[in-house]
Amino acid sequence: MITPSGIRDWPPENAWRKRYIENILVKLFQSWGYEEVITGTLEFDNVISKGLSENEKSQLYRFFGREGEILTLRPDMTTPIARFTATHLKNKTFPLRFFYTGNVFRYEKIQAGRYREFFQAGVELIGAESSLADAEIIILASRALEKVGVKDFRIGIGDIQLLNLVLELCELEYYGKEQLRKAIAEKDYVSVKALINKLKNESQSSYIQLLEKLSNIYGPDDFIKEFSRFETCLVIKNRLTVLKNIITLLETADLKDRIIIDLGITRDFQYYTGIVFEIYSPYIGFPICGGGRYDNLLNNFGFKCPATGFAMGIERVLLVLEKSGKLPKLEYKKCLVVGGDFKKIFQRAEELRSRGFFVEVELEEKDEKELKEYAKSKGINYIEVVN
Amino acid sequence: MITPSGIRDWPPENAWRKRYIENILVKLFQSWGYEEVITGTLEFDNVISKGLSENEKSQLYRFFGREGEILTLRPDMTTPIARFTATHLKNKTFPLRFFYTGNVFRYEKIQAGRYREFFQAGVELIGAESSLADAEIIILASRALEKVGVKDFRIGIGDIQLLNLVLELCELEYYGKEQLRKAIAEKDYVSVKALINKLKNESQSSYIQLLEKLSNIYGPDDFIKEFSRFETCLVIKNRLTVLKNIITLLETADLKDRIIIDLGITRDFQYYTGIVFEIYSPYIGFPICGGGRYDNLLNNFGFKCPATGFAMGIERVLLVLEKSGKLPKLEYKKCLVVGGDFKKIFQRAEELRSRGFFVEVELEEKDEKELKEYAKSKGINYIEVVN
Repeated sequence: MITPSGIRDWPPENAWRKRYIENILVKLFQSWGYEEVITGTLEFDNVISKGLSENEKSQLYRFFGREGEILTLRPDMTTPIARFTATHLKNKTFPLRFFYTGNVFRYEKIQAGRYREFFQAGVELIGAESSLADAEIIILASRALEKVGVKDFRIGIGDIQLLNLVLELCELEYYGKEQLRKAIAEKDYVSVKALINKLKNESQSSYIQLLEKLSNIYGPDDFIKEFSRFETCLVIKNRLTVLKNIITLLETADLKDRIIIDLGITRDFQYYTGIVFEIYSPYIGFPICGGGRYDNLLNNFGFKCPATGFAMGIERVLLVLEKSGKLPKLEYKKCLVVGGDFKKIFQRAEELRSRGFFVEVELEEKDEKELKEYAKSKGINYIEVVN
Repeated sequence: MITPSGIRDWPPENAWRKRYIENILVKLFQSWGYEEVITGTLEFDNVISKGLSENEKSQLYRFFGREGEILTLRPDMTTPIARFTATHLKNKTFPLRFFYTGNVFRYEKIQAGRYREFFQAGVELIGAESSLADAEIIILASRALEKVGVKDFRIGIGDIQLLNLVLELCELEYYGKEQLRKAIAEKDYVSVKALINKLKNESQSSYIQLLEKLSNIYGPDDFIKEFSRFETCLVIKNRLTVLKNIITLLETADLKDRIIIDLGITRDFQYYTGIVFEIYSPYIGFPICGGGRYDNLLNNFGFKCPATGFAMGIERVLLVLEKSGKLPKLEYKKCLVVGGDFKKIFQRAEELRSRGFFVEVELEEKDEKELKEYAKSKGINYIEVVN
C-alpha cells in the first residue's frame, strides 16, 4: 500500500464532478444569505472532544504536537465553526448564517463507500431558536439535494427532546435507560424491541406505551395522531406543538410527502439538543445528509447561543448520482493547437481560450497519425494547425 | 490559545476572497487544458520524504497511525500528485496536465504572513521534457497572477543544472562545495561572497570566474552576454542554449521585461532538476509563486517520467492584493424578506433568489427600528415586507 487506508485520490473525472457539485451548493447557500467560513484542519483535542461521546472520541485522528499538546484532525465542521463563532465572532449581529465545504477525518472501519478522509458541504445557522430556523435548515438541505440532481429522497425527522422526555417519563432505571438509548442510537432494532419488552414489565409508568413508539417510523399525520393522546402531559404537548409547527412549515415548502418522523434518529454527534434530521436515498444504505439543533455546543466555548445546521456527504451525493444515472457530464470543447511557430500557436491558443475553449498546445512534435491518436485518447474534438 | 499555533480561521470576507481567487485560477487552468486532481491530506512518511532534504523533513507534521505506520500531513502537492500519477495513471496518454487547489502543512517558525497550514493552487505538467513545457508553466503562472489582479511582479529564473555544472567545473573540494550550495540555497549572500573569495584562492580551475556570477542577478540579455564567453565549454553551451530558448519563448508571451536570471534560486524542495523559477512582488518579502522541473521525482515511485509545475500561495496572493489596494470587492444584492405569513415570505424569497439576490428571511420577529439596524449591520440593501 502506498496510501494510508481509507485515504483516497480523486482522478480528474471525479474531481471535476466534486467541484461541479460544490459550486452548485455554494451558489445555493449564498443565495439563501449564507457566507463561507473556513477553519483549520488541526484542532486541539480538548476543543473537538467537547460534545462527543466516548465512541465518537475513539474515532478521532489524534497525535502529539511538538509542544506536547494533543492535536486532532477535525471529524466534522460544526464544532470548529462553533468554536470560531464563540471565540471570535460573538460581537456580530445574529443570526449568523455560515456555510462550508471541507474535508473531515474519522478513523472508521473501512467498508464500501466509507473513507477515513471525506468531504462535506453544509451550513450552520447560529443565534436563532425559532422553529422557522429548524425548518429553514431542513428546507435548504432539500433544495441542495434537488439542485445537485438527487430527486428521490426521504427526510427522517427526530427530536432529541421528545426522545429524552419519553425516556424520563417512563421512569426507567439508569442502566436500562442507557442501554435503550444506545440501542436506539445504533439503530439496533432487535435489541430495542427486546429491551422495551423487558422494561415494560419493570416499569409502573402510565407512559410506558410511549416507549413502543420509539422504534416506529411514521408519516407526519400518523405521528401526530399516535402521540396526540399523550397531550394530557404538558411537556409532551409542548414538544408536539414544536414538531407540528415544523411539519406545517415544511409542507409550505412542498416537502410533506418526503417526511417521515423517526424518534430513533439521534445522529452521530452527541451535541444535538432538539430537532434532528437525516436524509435518505433508496440508492445507498446511509444518510446523504444530516443535522439538527445544537443549543449547548457554543456554551462549551463560553458563549450561550442556540444553533442548528446540516452537513451533506459529497462522496455520498456522488454515489447516489452515479447509481441513479444522474452523474453530471463534462461538456468541454477541447482543442489542440499545433504548428512550427510558437508565437502563432500561442496567440491562436489564447484567442480560443478567451472564446471558452479548453486549449492545449503541442509540446513535442508529432506526425499526423500520432496527433490524431493523441486527440482521440484525450477527448480533443478539434486540432488546429497554425503556420 | 484555543487553536494550534500557525493554524488559522477564515472569517466570511476572507473566505469569500479566497474562493473568488481560486475560481479565477480554476477557470484559467482549465482553459489551458489542465484537469483537477485531489489527493489525500495524509500520506505515508516514506512517500513524502522522497525528494526532501533533511531540513525539509524536519518541517513535516508526523505521527503514528494505529497500525504503527508513520503518517504525515502533506507539505506540498507535487509529491502526492507524482505518487498518484506514477502508481495509478501511468497508462494514460502523456503529457498529463493537472491542477489542484489545496491546503498543505509545514511546521515553520511562526512569523508575519506565515502559517503552518496554508493554501496553494498550482499545476503539474507531467510527461513533457521540452523547453516549451518549461515555458508553458512560467507563462501560465504569470497569466494566473495577472488574472487575479497581481500586476507588478518579477519572474526570477534559475537552473539547477547550470548551477551544478558551475560547482563541478570549479573542482571545489566536497566540503567547500556543499557549504557554498547551502549558503546559496539559504540566500545568505554574505557567506556566499566570503566562501567564493576563499575558494577562488584554493581552486586552479579556469572556470573559477563563473563562481562569482552565482550571487548576481541579471537581466536576460546581460546574463547571456556574461555567460557566453564560457561557451567554449560544451556542457555550459548546451545549458545556455536551453535558457536562451526559454527566454525567447517567454519574450513571445510579452514576459521579457519581467524576467531576471538568478542562478541562486534553488527552491524549497530538493526534487528540482532543471529550470526553476520564483515570482516576486514588491509588496511582500517572499515569493508568491514558484516551481520548476523535477525529472526524477516520479522515478521514486517506479515510473521514469519528466515533469514540471508550479505552486502559488493563496495567502500570499491575497496579501499582495491587499497591500496594493486590489482586493476583490463583494458586490452582492442582499435582501431581507419579512412578514407574518411563512408561505408568502418563502415564495417571495425563492423568487428573489432565482433572480440572483442573496435573500435572508426573518426568523424571529423584529420591529421596524430593529429591522433597519439589522439590515444595516449585515450590509442588506433592501428589506421587503410581504403580507
